Amino acid sequence: MGRVTVRKPVLKLTTRGERTRPDVLAAEEPLELRVGGRALAVTMRTPGHDVELAHGFLLSEGVLGSREDVRTARYCDSVDDHGRNTYNVLDLALADGVPAPDTGVERNFYTTSSCGVCGKAALDAVKLRTRFPAGDSPFAIAGDLLAKLPDQLRARQKVFDATGGLHGAALFGADGELLVVREDVGRHNAVDKVLGWALLEGRVPLPDAGLLVSGRASFELVQKAAMAGLPMLAAVSAPSSLAVELAEENGITLVGFLRGESMNIYTRDERVLRH
Amino acid sequence: MGRVTVRKPVLKLTTRGERTRPDVLAAEEPLELRVGGRALAVTMRTPGHDVELAHGFLLSEGVLGSREDVRTARYCDSVDDHGRNTYNVLDLALADGVPAPDTGVERNFYTTSSCGVCGKAALDAVKLRTRFPAGDSPFAIAGDLLAKLPDQLRARQKVFDATGGLHGAALFGADGELLVVREDVGRHNAVDKVLGWALLEGRVPLPDAGLLVSGRASFELVQKAAMAGLPMLAAVSAPSSLAVELAEENGITLVGFLRGESMNIYTRDERVLRH
Repeated sequence: MGRVTVRKPVLKLTTRGERTRPDVLAAEEPLELRVGGRALAVTMRTPGHDVELAHGFLLSEGVLGSREDVRTARYCDSVDDHGRNTYNVLDLALADGVPAPDTGVERNFYTTSSCGVCGKAALDAVKLRTRFPAGDSPFAIAGDLLAKLPDQLRARQKVFDATGGLHGAALFGADGELLVVREDVGRHNAVDKVLGWALLEGRVPLPDAGLLVSGRASFELVQKAAMAGLPMLAAVSAPSSLAVELAEENGITLVGFLRGESMNIYTRDERVLRH
Repeated sequence: MGRVTVRKPVLKLTTRGERTRPDVLAAEEPLELRVGGRALAVTMRTPGHDVELAHGFLLSEGVLGSREDVRTARYCDSVDDHGRNTYNVLDLALADGVPAPDTGVERNFYTTSSCGVCGKAALDAVKLRTRFPAGDSPFAIAGDLLAKLPDQLRARQKVFDATGGLHGAALFGADGELLVVREDVGRHNAVDKVLGWALLEGRVPLPDAGLLVSGRASFELVQKAAMAGLPMLAAVSAPSSLAVELAEENGITLVGFLRGESMNIYTRDERVLRH
């Protein structure tokens, strides 16, 4: 499975004794993302689908709206101690007229030197406005199809099979078919990879699809769904309070605890069809 | 449970029908962290233990080494639409002589306008050197005591009980007792809270303790353990490849898949005592 997994010896201890054996671990390496030659972010990710990851990240950040917004994406000639390319530095050149992202923590909020009126600044700072509102999307999926999605995702998580631990994300259609599945040590990265795939396929915005994640639904994952124009986010585990609030604001259907026999629908339940 | 949980109505769908009921969600709110009045970071966290979180975060970032490095910590007078303090902006004043952290993504690596020699820059950029090496620590714990820790952690995760989904972190001693337990929607935040607790208690560095986490062991969690001078990190789920490598480099014992009947020891297994 190449660079997405790494073998390491492990001492396995059980109540019956111990033994040393090789273990397969999910690979984690830093990806330095540059835009126009300027460093923008370093994310710890599982190598593979890096170009998708970069596109999805920049879509989530509001920098990109379509694949035409990127002129080129290429790995820099970074080398390790043995002179081999690390493939850990990726540079995207934006198309003419696409504003480069601001860098630095100050991009999002004004810094004041006194503790003055900050109001809702902290929250407003992290909230981004989507250019693809999905509140009016007529997308809907039958509850029994939705209930089967986690098993389908799990069946297609090849690296999870080998390593026993990795986040998964997928896009699904109204027919209950998974359009794309991606895995990563980072939950946000797995989502960025599927969103980047969609952007590169020319499928963004995504008013006729839903986003499935293997873990919890946080504020940031709802925000990523909103930025891609998705009308539904379904999570295998619990949502946070702010995830529900942001889903409400954006007219997104938020499903949590999606587990075969049951699910919780927190917002816009009309998109989950019952008999 | 106040601000750490939030009630929301939920439509629960099962194979036997549907009903609407109130659901308890883990609260998630942004915390804007300022140092000397300057915005440093915004983290999405479960409110509570914010001062610990701030101290732990700055310990992890290499800014703090002891509680004496902070002069004051106070909430700014930020207010919401109803004029209530949000308690979502925290300002720390550093003691004289403690260098303020750099802000911005450029703090860690040089930005080049060409794709030149970046070498291991991306990895070096995110690696921090600890001032508390723990490689020589004689800390050790019996394997059967270690095996019981996840159940103890779970029993003390009060918010998880109510919400069904939240990360937990704890410090433990050689006797298998948990010293402190913290929960958060963010895995890093839960760890920062326990490390901040230790710093405020005057217990950092921590050569005689281990760090327990409810989820996976990533590069960043091993780095946090290293920055606090901890000789052991035990995770209920899988480690990543880079987590194992960083644990090796720092002489930290890394345990994964810690689950009652068995565990995997990836590095420095002499600290787990067998009969």
